[in-house]
Amino acid sequence: MTSEFGLIERYFVGRQPSRPDVVLAAGDDCALVEVPAGYQVAISTDSVVAGTHFLANADPAAIAHKALASNLSDLAAMGATPAWVSLALTLPNVDEAWLSRFCDAFFALADQHQLQLIGGDTTKGPLAITLTVQGLVPVGQALRRSGASVGDGIYVTGSLGEAKAGLDVILHPDQHRETEAQTLVDAHYFSEPRVAIGQALRGLASAAIDISDGLIADLGHILERSQCGAKINISQLPISASLAQFLRERSRALQYALTSGEEYELCFTAAADHDTAVMAIAQSLSVPITRIGEITQTGQIELHDDGAALDWQLTGFDHFKDENNE
Amino acid sequence: MTSEFGLIERYFVGRQPSRPDVVLAAGDDCALVEVPAGYQVAISTDSVVAGTHFLANADPAAIAHKALASNLSDLAAMGATPAWVSLALTLPNVDEAWLSRFCDAFFALADQHQLQLIGGDTTKGPLAITLTVQGLVPVGQALRRSGASVGDGIYVTGSLGEAKAGLDVILHPDQHRETEAQTLVDAHYFSEPRVAIGQALRGLASAAIDISDGLIADLGHILERSQCGAKINISQLPISASLAQFLRERSRALQYALTSGEEYELCFTAAADHDTAVMAIAQSLSVPITRIGEITQTGQIELHDDGAALDWQLTGFDHFKDENNE
Repeated sequence: MTSEFGLIERYFVGRQPSRPDVVLAAGDDCALVEVPAGYQVAISTDSVVAGTHFLANADPAAIAHKALASNLSDLAAMGATPAWVSLALTLPNVDEAWLSRFCDAFFALADQHQLQLIGGDTTKGPLAITLTVQGLVPVGQALRRSGASVGDGIYVTGSLGEAKAGLDVILHPDQHRETEAQTLVDAHYFSEPRVAIGQALRGLASAAIDISDGLIADLGHILERSQCGAKINISQLPISASLAQFLRERSRALQYALTSGEEYELCFTAAADHDTAVMAIAQSLSVPITRIGEITQTGQIELHDDGAALDWQLTGFDHFKDENNE
Repeated sequence: MTSEFGLIERYFVGRQPSRPDVVLAAGDDCALVEVPAGYQVAISTDSVVAGTHFLANADPAAIAHKALASNLSDLAAMGATPAWVSLALTLPNVDEAWLSRFCDAFFALADQHQLQLIGGDTTKGPLAITLTVQGLVPVGQALRRSGASVGDGIYVTGSLGEAKAGLDVILHPDQHRETEAQTLVDAHYFSEPRVAIGQALRGLASAAIDISDGLIADLGHILERSQCGAKINISQLPISASLAQFLRERSRALQYALTSGEEYELCFTAAADHDTAVMAIAQSLSVPITRIGEITQTGQIELHDDGAALDWQLTGFDHFKDENNE
C-alpha cells in the first residue's frame, strides 16, 4: 500500500526458507517464534552508524556483512547457535541499487548460518543499522566471561590486527598502493564470525568473549568478570603475513594485534587439560587457534616478549573516549 | 574502564529487579533468557529517529516513553505479555542530564509492565533509539491480523486523533495558546500502550493491530491479511472533548481520527457473539472500547455517516511517501 511497507516487502520478505521454529515472520505486529525444550535464548543487539562505524559511502555489501558479522560474533562468543534476527534500517532515502546490494550480502551471511530475518523496521534518517540476533544454547552450556580460573590457557582464533590496518587503508587512500591493501580492507569489512568454533567450545572453554574492542580491552572484560589477571606472551600473537608486510615493524604489528577492534575473532580461556581438545577443534574446523598466555591471580594484564617484561600502555576502542575519559 | 561502558553501566544496569526468566542481563556478549513451556515468543523492533519521529530538542522523557510505548503497543496487538527489551541508543554526545531524564521515563514505563532491559548498545551518532521488545503468549493464542471474518465487529480502544493534533501543536508553537494544547502534546508523547487489553482479548478478538500508521492504514493491513473489507460508521469514532474543541469542525476531527498515526490504540475485530465479553473487558479495565463498524466482503473500506455514504480519500502515515509513491 504505502512505499515504506512496499520497500520492506520487496527487498526483505520471502528471501529465505522459513525455519520450523518461526511461526510468523514479517507481516504482523510481531514475529512469533518457538524455543525448543532444554534450550535458553542468547540475545544481542548492536548498532552500526555511518560516520562512526563506517563511511557513509562505503560499499553497502560491506556494511551489511560487517553489521551482521558483529552480531553473529556475539552469539559465537556465547556458544549459541544462530536462529533469528531483527533488522532496523534507517536510510536517508530509498536507493534501490544500494538496498539490493545491502540485502544480497545480508542474506548471504544469514543463510550461511541458518539465521532467519523475522522482522524489523525501516525508517527515514541518517544511515544506521541496528540488529538484534537471537541464538539457542542448551541450558547451562552458554560460554560466559566469568568462568576463567588461575592457570587456564588464554587462546585466540584466527589472526589479529588486520581490521585496524584495513581501517588505516580505508581512511588513507594513498595506502591503497600497498600490495596488501585490499586483503586488509576485506579483513576490516568481511571478517567471518567464529560461530562453529563458539559452539564447539561448549563444555571446554571456561570463559569467552569476541574481540570487538581490541584484545586488551576484551580480555580485560573476562578478567574483570572472572576476578583474575593474565600474562600474555606477545611473541605468540597470531599475525598474518599481510599485516607484518604492511606494518613492517614487528612492534607495530604486535600493538595492532593487541588493540585492533572489530576483529570478530574469539578470545577464550580453557583449563590446561582441555588444551588437546581445543587444538583438535582448530584442526577439524580448519581455523587457527593460538595459545597466547595464561590466567594469573594479579588482576592485571602483564605483557612479556618470550619472558622479557614490557610496559606498553595500550587501551581498546571506545566511541566516546575523546570527550568523556574516566 | 572506558567511558562507553561506564555510560551504559551507570545509567542502565541494576535499575530494575531481575525477572526469574532472565538468566543473564547486561555484562556479557549476549543476554540469556528462558521461555516457559507452552509459550511462544512475540518479537517486535521499532526505531525512532530525531527529525523523523521527534524533534531533536524534544523532552528526553517524551522520547523514551514514546519509543517504548510504540514497541509495547506491538506486543499488545499480539496479545503478548511483555518480558524483555533490548535498547540501542545512538547519541551525538554524552549529556548526563539528558540520559538521566531519558532513563527515568524509560524505566518507569518498563517497570509498569514488568519488562526487563536485558542489553543493548550505546553508540555515537545522530540521535536515534531502536528497541527490540519480546513478550510471551500461550501457544496458538497470539492475536494476528489475518483472522477477521465477514460480520465481525470492528472495535477501537480509547479515543483517536489526539496524537496528530498534538504534533500540530509541537510543530506550530503559536497553537500552544489553545487551552487543549498541553493535553494534546501529552497524548502525542505519553500515550499508554493497551497491554492489558491485548492480553484480555486472547480468545475473543479474531484479528488485531495497533494504530501506528492511522486507523485507515492499519485497518487496511487487517483487511489485506484477512482478505475482506470493512464498513465504518464515522459517527461512532471515539473523539475526545479536547480534540473536538481544538479542531472545532466535526469533519476535521473525524478525519484526524481516521488518519492519526502513532496513537498506540488497538483496532481489533470480534465475532458478534463476543460483543458482550468485549464490552466487559472495557468495563473491568476502565478503558473505552468502541464498536465503529463491521467486516464486509468487499475488500475495501467504506465510510458512512450514520448511513449516509462518504467519499473521503484518506491514507495513512509513511515516512518515505513523498519520494517513492506507489
